Amino acid sequence: MTRHQLDDLLDLATRVKGKRPGQVLGGKTLGMLFFQPSLRTRVSFEVAMQQLGGHCINLSADDMYELEPSEQAIMDGRAEEHVKDAARTLSRYVDALGVRAAARTGTWTRDRQELLLRSYAEHASVPVINLETVFEHPCQALGDVLTMRENLVSLQGRKLTLLWCNHPEPKSLGPTHSVLQLAALMGMEITLAHPLGFEVDEEVLQRSKDAAADAGGSLQVVNDREVAADGAEVLYARSWGCTKYWDDAEREAMVKRSLQDWRVDAELMARTNQALLMHPLPVRRNVAATDEVLDGDRSRIYDQAANRAHVQKALLMQLIK
Amino acid sequence: MTRHQLDDLLDLATRVKGKRPGQVLGGKTLGMLFFQPSLRTRVSFEVAMQQLGGHCINLSADDMYELEPSEQAIMDGRAEEHVKDAARTLSRYVDALGVRAAARTGTWTRDRQELLLRSYAEHASVPVINLETVFEHPCQALGDVLTMRENLVSLQGRKLTLLWCNHPEPKSLGPTHSVLQLAALMGMEITLAHPLGFEVDEEVLQRSKDAAADAGGSLQVVNDREVAADGAEVLYARSWGCTKYWDDAEREAMVKRSLQDWRVDAELMARTNQALLMHPLPVRRNVAATDEVLDGDRSRIYDQAANRAHVQKALLMQLIK
Amino acid sequence: MTRHQLDDLLDLATRVKGKRPGQVLGGKTLGMLFFQPSLRTRVSFEVAMQQLGGHCINLSADDMYELEPSEQAIMDGRAEEHVKDAARTLSRYVDALGVRAAARTGTWTRDRQELLLRSYAEHASVPVINLETVFEHPCQALGDVLTMRENLVSLQGRKLTLLWCNHPEPKSLGPTHSVLQLAALMGMEITLAHPLGFEVDEEVLQRSKDAAADAGGSLQVVNDREVAADGAEVLYARSWGCTKYWDDAEREAMVKRSLQDWRVDAELMARTNQALLMHPLPVRRNVAATDEVLDGDRSRIYDQAANRAHVQKALLMQLIK
Repeated sequence: MTRHQLDDLLDLATRVKGKRPGQVLGGKTLGMLFFQPSLRTRVSFEVAMQQLGGHCINLSADDMYELEPSEQAIMDGRAEEHVKDAARTLSRYVDALGVRAAARTGTWTRDRQELLLRSYAEHASVPVINLETVFEHPCQALGDVLTMRENLVSLQGRKLTLLWCNHPEPKSLGPTHSVLQLAALMGMEITLAHPLGFEVDEEVLQRSKDAAADAGGSLQVVNDREVAADGAEVLYARSWGCTKYWDDAEREAMVKRSLQDWRVDAELMARTNQALLMHPLPVRRNVAATDEVLDGDRSRIYDQAANRAHVQKALLMQLIK
Repeated sequence: MTRHQLDDLLDLATRVKGKRPGQVLGGKTLGMLFFQPSLRTRVSFEVAMQQLGGHCINLSADDMYELEPSEQAIMDGRAEEHVKDAARTLSRYVDALGVRAAARTGTWTRDRQELLLRSYAEHASVPVINLETVFEHPCQALGDVLTMRENLVSLQGRKLTLLWCNHPEPKSLGPTHSVLQLAALMGMEITLAHPLGFEVDEEVLQRSKDAAADAGGSLQVVNDREVAADGAEVLYARSWGCTKYWDDAEREAMVKRSLQDWRVDAELMARTNQALLMHPLPVRRNVAATDEVLDGDRSRIYDQAANRAHVQKALLMQLIK
Repeated sequence: MTRHQLDDLLDLATRVKGKRPGQVLGGKTLGMLFFQPSLRTRVSFEVAMQQLGGHCINLSADDMYELEPSEQAIMDGRAEEHVKDAARTLSRYVDALGVRAAARTGTWTRDRQELLLRSYAEHASVPVINLETVFEHPCQALGDVLTMRENLVSLQGRKLTLLWCNHPEPKSLGPTHSVLQLAALMGMEITLAHPLGFEVDEEVLQRSKDAAADAGGSLQVVNDREVAADGAEVLYARSWGCTKYWDDAEREAMVKRSLQDWRVDAELMARTNQALLMHPLPVRRNVAATDEVLDGDRSRIYDQAANRAHVQKALLMQLIK
């Protein structure tokens, strides 16, 4: 995505938020495949399509056969249908296809390639929307950038801290990677903060640094949560998994036992420059952040969720002819 | 609910049943959360919204994360999201929210408080509709009262027998409690009949007695099914669980072994004053009532189900602006 | 179905495919019950209803209570509701009902009777559509006949080979039986080819022979795949189960070990008269047919799937008033 494309999308989202655009997608259908649970993504897309006059068809793993993702596979195992055939068939019925394929297979080198999503994208003849992988969650980040823009007007040079926080389970890197890249594109001054060992993907980091520099912003990484909070105008909290122990949840859990202070509380918020508190939800209350700050007047967590529907309307209007 | 509000709702239901009101809820969305299976509730609400020009989004427990209901919880266990956040997020997407939260936790004192439903109601900023708890099932009772009114015109002083019947499993008290209260409000002469040990909730009973007296009706409790049937104009059968053994299904099953004659059959119907036979469905055929009476010409069981859609249309038109 | 009715339906399907017929089913609802997974059937019906202005309500076994199919049952077991009551209730809400009831119970004599589907059909007061049983899959076959007609114009006297192919699991006879009967009705010259032991249902075979003869076509059975391919203008591949070992999947699997050459490949296609390759999907790639032929320019597998939506639109327009 270029900066220009991003601005266009956000401008359209702002317009459709202000005034419903009518039945512009009348008779159109979005197919959504969920291989993991969903609340916001599912409901926000369904509401978006509905309000544009269209319709969503939702399938979960339970509704379908097991699918084979590998090319040239000799399908004598459990998988009843090839992803290729599912993608090509669905393309004959629907106008766009959303796929949530966020399973962990145990190898970061493999999971970072988003093979399943890319297989749908390769074989479908309609647009394919990423509804979250472990590597990217672009729709979440679009809603987040819209939320920041609504509050700060211009994002150029504004101080965003992306803060790792604690969580009992290993989480995907999707929201973090996507917010990082879009914030960089907007020229923000980004501080990425996490404990040692929780580095984000190297390629994403380098790409984001380059994009930030190009856009007149910056990106620094720190390993101290208090330093990270100092002077922030937006504090964006989220947990993510350790890519080094991607196949070893127990080891990650052990490491995290000493990281319980990586939690957002009033004291940390006090170090910021009256920062907006953001988190993509679902949030582990009183583990990732305290009730006090989540329910406080600087919290924008529900606006982020609400804006999902608006940016997705804009996206659907651009993607579906 | 006051008598006046109830009459208003039933009048509106009668009007929308006679003539479809058009797209009055065009662009509106009802979110429905089902934590237990549903046939009638799910389909009747979905049809209702659709025929009013709106749309339902249905989520079951399988589609979502596990949710935490307790305030101030430190969420380091299995629950991935707090009910508070789910309710507030959904309120940003949908225009009303229906919740079926009829799980048994083992303690009647707790379950009668409908904590999960009330937590949604407290945190949502849109109207929340009870789609059944173990304590109340108001939408069922509204359809039932409409059905009685269609057959008997005025319900004032008409003889309704609410009859416990046998069932292999412990059932909720929802439909019984809700029918009891609405029938009382309508001024019916109610006989509540059940074996010793299957008393309904004391507070509901007292409230219903008071309401019946206020409305010029009455409410008596008997423990003899034949006495209960004598002269009834409506025989409303349903099983419900024993609140005393709420945590002990085996003990309840043992008690029920001697209660197999608590079943509606032609002989019992013959004691009534040509009563309408009602049951909220699903019904255990030849356990709760015989095929002969369920399929007989006094049976109104399918009208009750059909009227669910009509009263719910009226309800949605009143609740959603 | 008569030949005349079939022609009418296909003509209507062709018309609605060329030009969307508008909101002719506005406000109408199709209820769909899936007791087995579905991709094409589910999505093609939902898209069809949507594009006609109507709506689908989908229920899977997980959403519902367990249902009792036997008449006069004393329902003191696990089933919470009788099929009779589900069918009659749903008939009060929806305008037509689709049922996928393709479970194997272990006895071919029983399963060939389609008891569950027929129970819905008997008790529902709205039209009931077969969404696949182990005995018939008429909607699939309708889409297939439309696909053949689009490619060959007239089907009279055209050479169709219905070819058994290998599959790791025992499959239903639904698509095979339904294609056989519709192709016979169209007067095609049909070769049914399968290994010894995989005979189709005798009654279906005889009925199809008679229909083919009546329509000026023919039906022969061979047990040699190469002979079957010679000169074919349509090669329709699909696996089906052995009715003799219907209750013994392991024995069927053992028999199939020596049948791995029952697979469509380029060599087999070369024996045909430039045949169209058809398969109802899902297909086991490189087991039932090779990637080369499935992805080749004679393959019509996605057209078959796409035509499901068009024939079903025609069907819905004829069934729903």
